[in-house]
Amino acid sequence: MNDLKLSWIASANSAETLFPLNNLPYGVFSTNGKRPHCGVAIGNFILDVTLAEESGLLTICSEPLFKAASWNKLMSQSPNVWTTFRTRLMEILAEDSSDQARAEAFLISSADVQLHMPFTVSEYTDFYAGRHHALNVGMMFRGPENALPPNWLHIPIGYNGRASSIVVSGTNIRRPWSQLKSPDDTDPRFGPSARFDIELEIGAVVGVPSNGPITVSQADDNIFGYVLLNDWSARDIQAWEYQPLGPFQSKATATSISPWIVTKAALDPFRCETPEREKELLPHLRDCGPMLYDINLSVSLIPDNGLETEIAHTNYNVMYYSAAQQLAHHTTSGCPMRTGDLLGSGTISGPRKDNRGSLLELSWGGKEPFELIDGSSRSFLEDGDTIVLKGSANGHGYKVGFGDCVGKIIEAVNDLE
Amino acid sequence: MNDLKLSWIASANSAETLFPLNNLPYGVFSTNGKRPHCGVAIGNFILDVTLAEESGLLTICSEPLFKAASWNKLMSQSPNVWTTFRTRLMEILAEDSSDQARAEAFLISSADVQLHMPFTVSEYTDFYAGRHHALNVGMMFRGPENALPPNWLHIPIGYNGRASSIVVSGTNIRRPWSQLKSPDDTDPRFGPSARFDIELEIGAVVGVPSNGPITVSQADDNIFGYVLLNDWSARDIQAWEYQPLGPFQSKATATSISPWIVTKAALDPFRCETPEREKELLPHLRDCGPMLYDINLSVSLIPDNGLETEIAHTNYNVMYYSAAQQLAHHTTSGCPMRTGDLLGSGTISGPRKDNRGSLLELSWGGKEPFELIDGSSRSFLEDGDTIVLKGSANGHGYKVGFGDCVGKIIEAVNDLE
Repeated sequence: MNDLKLSWIASANSAETLFPLNNLPYGVFSTNGKRPHCGVAIGNFILDVTLAEESGLLTICSEPLFKAASWNKLMSQSPNVWTTFRTRLMEILAEDSSDQARAEAFLISSADVQLHMPFTVSEYTDFYAGRHHALNVGMMFRGPENALPPNWLHIPIGYNGRASSIVVSGTNIRRPWSQLKSPDDTDPRFGPSARFDIELEIGAVVGVPSNGPITVSQADDNIFGYVLLNDWSARDIQAWEYQPLGPFQSKATATSISPWIVTKAALDPFRCETPEREKELLPHLRDCGPMLYDINLSVSLIPDNGLETEIAHTNYNVMYYSAAQQLAHHTTSGCPMRTGDLLGSGTISGPRKDNRGSLLELSWGGKEPFELIDGSSRSFLEDGDTIVLKGSANGHGYKVGFGDCVGKIIEAVNDLE
Repeated sequence: MNDLKLSWIASANSAETLFPLNNLPYGVFSTNGKRPHCGVAIGNFILDVTLAEESGLLTICSEPLFKAASWNKLMSQSPNVWTTFRTRLMEILAEDSSDQARAEAFLISSADVQLHMPFTVSEYTDFYAGRHHALNVGMMFRGPENALPPNWLHIPIGYNGRASSIVVSGTNIRRPWSQLKSPDDTDPRFGPSARFDIELEIGAVVGVPSNGPITVSQADDNIFGYVLLNDWSARDIQAWEYQPLGPFQSKATATSISPWIVTKAALDPFRCETPEREKELLPHLRDCGPMLYDINLSVSLIPDNGLETEIAHTNYNVMYYSAAQQLAHHTTSGCPMRTGDLLGSGTISGPRKDNRGSLLELSWGGKEPFELIDGSSRSFLEDGDTIVLKGSANGHGYKVGFGDCVGKIIEAVNDLE
């Protein structure tokens, strides 16, 4: 089961590609400024799903699913329809396909396309479910005794973010202005963030909507797929604003996601258990199967016109709560969830220093700047820095990848003066 | 300017109606289960705007604005178009109108309609901008010395809520289950909220989108109108979950809004200044004109099959920050704002005990239950209780009202066991 499936597209059969037949992630692309279409990545190509559906090659419903440049319509269907669609895709693209000649007409070289947001985000929630991250941040701000908040081992703590600020990989990120006050200042001032940071995360994309409390098992069923996610965070803005109602403008500049949604089906061979529980969870949040995934993750930093340094690498399997547990918790009070809701995992830090998924942790609050390959150092982001998140699950002789999640920092501008 | 404008619809000329020609609020209605249409309230009638536009009586754009059952398309136009539309409405409905005969065909008695959500909510933000409320809550939880958080006099503190949980007046509100832990408990448990509460607020509806920081003056221009808003809040869930990232499931059960959006134009004669500043605001948040409104507000509680008790009355003019200041702050970090974003003012409490806009304050954290007309008492909501918010600005011999914002509490059900 966990082996490379062969395609008639040679580049999809390489052990190095992120997009073998086993993966088939969903994105939105355009060529030469034309109207964006839905597409599926396969090796070095993209299958134009909008045109393939129009032609009848890939028609699975009586009404079209891919007329709009987003995957939301397929996402809103039942999981059976997701399976039917994926099965048909595999049939068309597998090495012995009788549809090869027809499908070739809908292949575009990945080199020629621009990628867009793969789905319309309904609402965005960000969690705090990485234990190493919560411990690191807690130790910095509250000392080792009180590092984990009292509720942390009982609920996946989350807050609502801004869907309007989600952008696709490749979008430049402007350093934010906002109100700031360092502990030494008497009064706050309005200025650009000097502690602008990243958060390495995996985002879960809700497919099936719900309208009331759901179980962890139902929640897992309702999840359509996963993306890489970088929750850009202004630590200095956060410090001044977050008491008592949580992060607001510190997290509202932008959140970048990978251009490809990797489906739950593609990740299925890489399911794994959450870590052992220090406190037993209440029944409504208890694990009911392996719902995390073994996904290798890394963060690179590239200074303006400079060399790439991998500054951290970790794995999604270290998280304390799965996305299914987060989604179940999200519905306990009756909160309706909708197709296109995006749930950030929380920062994914591992136990070692080079497993830390934020600069706040890597530089220990700015006290221990870390070195780049070119000899320069960083505590937080500088203008011109590019951050690249990479992620893939590794099978026997193949990878299931997300495509890079990239963002470059551009200088702050005050439009208000 | 501040006098009743006369209409050929007699019920619109009463000093008691909430919907004189001066108001013309925007809603969505249906009759006999038919497809919902956009409508404007006038006296005891609703003008069917969808049909009036179709007929050519009320056509102000080359493409139709009211085909969908929501006001978002008009909201997304420029303020000039808002004015053109309102001017034309006034012309049609004014006492000397030459369009009376044509318009009569599109009038429906308000008694015969069901009201729906007047607009599609993009995202929902709730603020904490009432000083009396913040002081009351702060005194209960942190004592009089530290009642106001250090940032409170410098920024309108807000958090992101859930757009999916916004419902129109008349929708029943199911008491939520969630994880709870009182200070005396060793471990949390999963149960129904025993401290379910209301928050009396005004919601500002964003019309013109923005994509980067905007000034307070631009923010005021971008606001389309206002609604009454009840942010149902589970205080026991909130107490356990809100540290360190703010309210989440405690605020996600539902938020009710009035069925009518009262336009900024209708409220214009009632503009007033924010209170004197204890600390001067930074330039980007400073007042630049009267941007609060003199709107009388009240809260009534009706036990199941019981008598109505007015439990509080206050005025929107006591708020420390205007919606324009909140919207400007919301954009400082670059956060894009979209047509249909909804901004809750925060709980509107006045200086006196009977001015308090939440049961938490009225019962002082449950320690001082308050009496109802029937002799029973309340600390928090009981199943079967109906809460009615009322609001109107009062001119010379006329009112500009929102229509009641009503919700009835129904018993908690645990679907998960």
